[in-house]
Amino acid sequence: MMVERLGLIGCGLMGGSFALALKQAGLVRHVVGFSPRESTRAKALALGVIDEAVGSLHEAVRDADVVLLAVPVAATASSLREMAPFLRVDTLLMDVGSTKGDVVQAAQRHLGDKLPCFVPAHPIAGSERAGVEAAYADLYRGQPLILTPIAETDATPLARAHHLWQALGCQVSRMSPEAHDATFAAVSHLPHLLAFAFIQGLSEQPQGAEFMSLAGPGFRDFSRIAASDPAVWRDIFSANASELLVQLSHFRHALTSFETQLQAIAQGQTDQNLTQNSAPHLAMLEQQIAQASAVRAKWKAH
Amino acid sequence: MMVERLGLIGCGLMGGSFALALKQAGLVRHVVGFSPRESTRAKALALGVIDEAVGSLHEAVRDADVVLLAVPVAATASSLREMAPFLRVDTLLMDVGSTKGDVVQAAQRHLGDKLPCFVPAHPIAGSERAGVEAAYADLYRGQPLILTPIAETDATPLARAHHLWQALGCQVSRMSPEAHDATFAAVSHLPHLLAFAFIQGLSEQPQGAEFMSLAGPGFRDFSRIAASDPAVWRDIFSANASELLVQLSHFRHALTSFETQLQAIAQGQTDQNLTQNSAPHLAMLEQQIAQASAVRAKWKAH
Repeated sequence: MMVERLGLIGCGLMGGSFALALKQAGLVRHVVGFSPRESTRAKALALGVIDEAVGSLHEAVRDADVVLLAVPVAATASSLREMAPFLRVDTLLMDVGSTKGDVVQAAQRHLGDKLPCFVPAHPIAGSERAGVEAAYADLYRGQPLILTPIAETDATPLARAHHLWQALGCQVSRMSPEAHDATFAAVSHLPHLLAFAFIQGLSEQPQGAEFMSLAGPGFRDFSRIAASDPAVWRDIFSANASELLVQLSHFRHALTSFETQLQAIAQGQTDQNLTQNSAPHLAMLEQQIAQASAVRAKWKAH
Repeated sequence: MMVERLGLIGCGLMGGSFALALKQAGLVRHVVGFSPRESTRAKALALGVIDEAVGSLHEAVRDADVVLLAVPVAATASSLREMAPFLRVDTLLMDVGSTKGDVVQAAQRHLGDKLPCFVPAHPIAGSERAGVEAAYADLYRGQPLILTPIAETDATPLARAHHLWQALGCQVSRMSPEAHDATFAAVSHLPHLLAFAFIQGLSEQPQGAEFMSLAGPGFRDFSRIAASDPAVWRDIFSANASELLVQLSHFRHALTSFETQLQAIAQGQTDQNLTQNSAPHLAMLEQQIAQASAVRAKWKAH
């Protein structure tokens, strides 16, 4: 299980925390880190996140028995292409991306005969904070981690990835890249999209700021994720656009059925002759709320 | 400022906490409480929330110099009608409802010559817990409280309401019932509607439960309010249906502009000839996210 030499590509929150977690668990002998910016590398070195800073990606992966790719989505394909010739055939290569279909596609296109080494990984962890200063050894502890192996993935690196993340305290599960992306479109990407659209719809109104000045804890929690990083979420939405659109259509369907009841109720309020017809719409509205409320009330975070 | 005799109609979380807050501040001599259920009255008495339990609404309001109506929305109109003949002309009557247009309408219809005593109030406070057992003296401390007086409202009870809530530690402000309902449609009722519709759209899918089993902290916070009480929210949505529909149309407009970019991006991914055309859509997508993110990041709870 011991990692002799970890090649860390990207020394930010996710990559840095992985290195610190391995160190805390006594599971790594040497961490070689690369980040495009010299200042980031220097900070990672000063903070003890990496043991050695190198100025190029290929120096970081050469002779590494484990490579973790923890770069922004936009840099994934080019990083894979650049590292492929320098990877050992027995290296375990992983990423930490929030979408998997796009990463698998890039790997299939760029890794060539090193494709079997690659085990796509998504740790369900993060923080509003970013950068190597925010990295900490317990970021992944107790969190779910999903591996999305493909037909070409070798059993040996897959088993090693599984054991490594488990040793760091993760609840490791496996699914296909497609199932992964459908799942996270539903429970993560769609909520982010709705939160962004909610804030946009609000702030585009002349009284938007006035409205928000009176908002309470419900608003606070519901819209917290709307403050997320624009470049990160542009990339996630783009990488998972088709699944996100599928989830959006499910949402629109549900929203429309709520709206139908509301319109009938509002109509009954303005037209006195229709008042007595509101009862079935109120009953349907309550039933829809009750179903959602029951589902949400029994949900538990892992 | 001292309240000689508080008539408390509804001894639940909101009403009970108001009585406890007045007692803690030494601002009330005697609290007479009415709740339809005998067991609730007994509990309120045992917990020291009220000093005297009475079996009818008119006994609770008779001789009270302050009356707080803290009943479910559905019981507001009938309570006002029933109490009107028994109110003193110099009584201060307040409610604590989340919507104000409907309450004002009911007051105008049912209070007759006692209408000037009525000061509609909305304390922005609450809890997932309900009932008199959940009541506590500090529920309102530090929270915003909105008064929505109308043309008929007398200056004396209005000033008294203002000072009373201020003495309990509230940040008191005033607005029209219409402005109040527009504001809370935007920052409270719409988010609840979206959260309910989100959970419904998710749970109606065959894999909904599977999807939710992998949901993380973003999902948790975004959907927390979807677990809210169905009868309460049926009544709020119904009371504020037309303003809620206005806010919903702003939201739909914003959502559609996001969806347009996503569709163009997804189209570019399936049709290779169009790939180079994705750039402006990605830029627009990022810009929309960045605007929402900036607005939400600078928002602060009062």
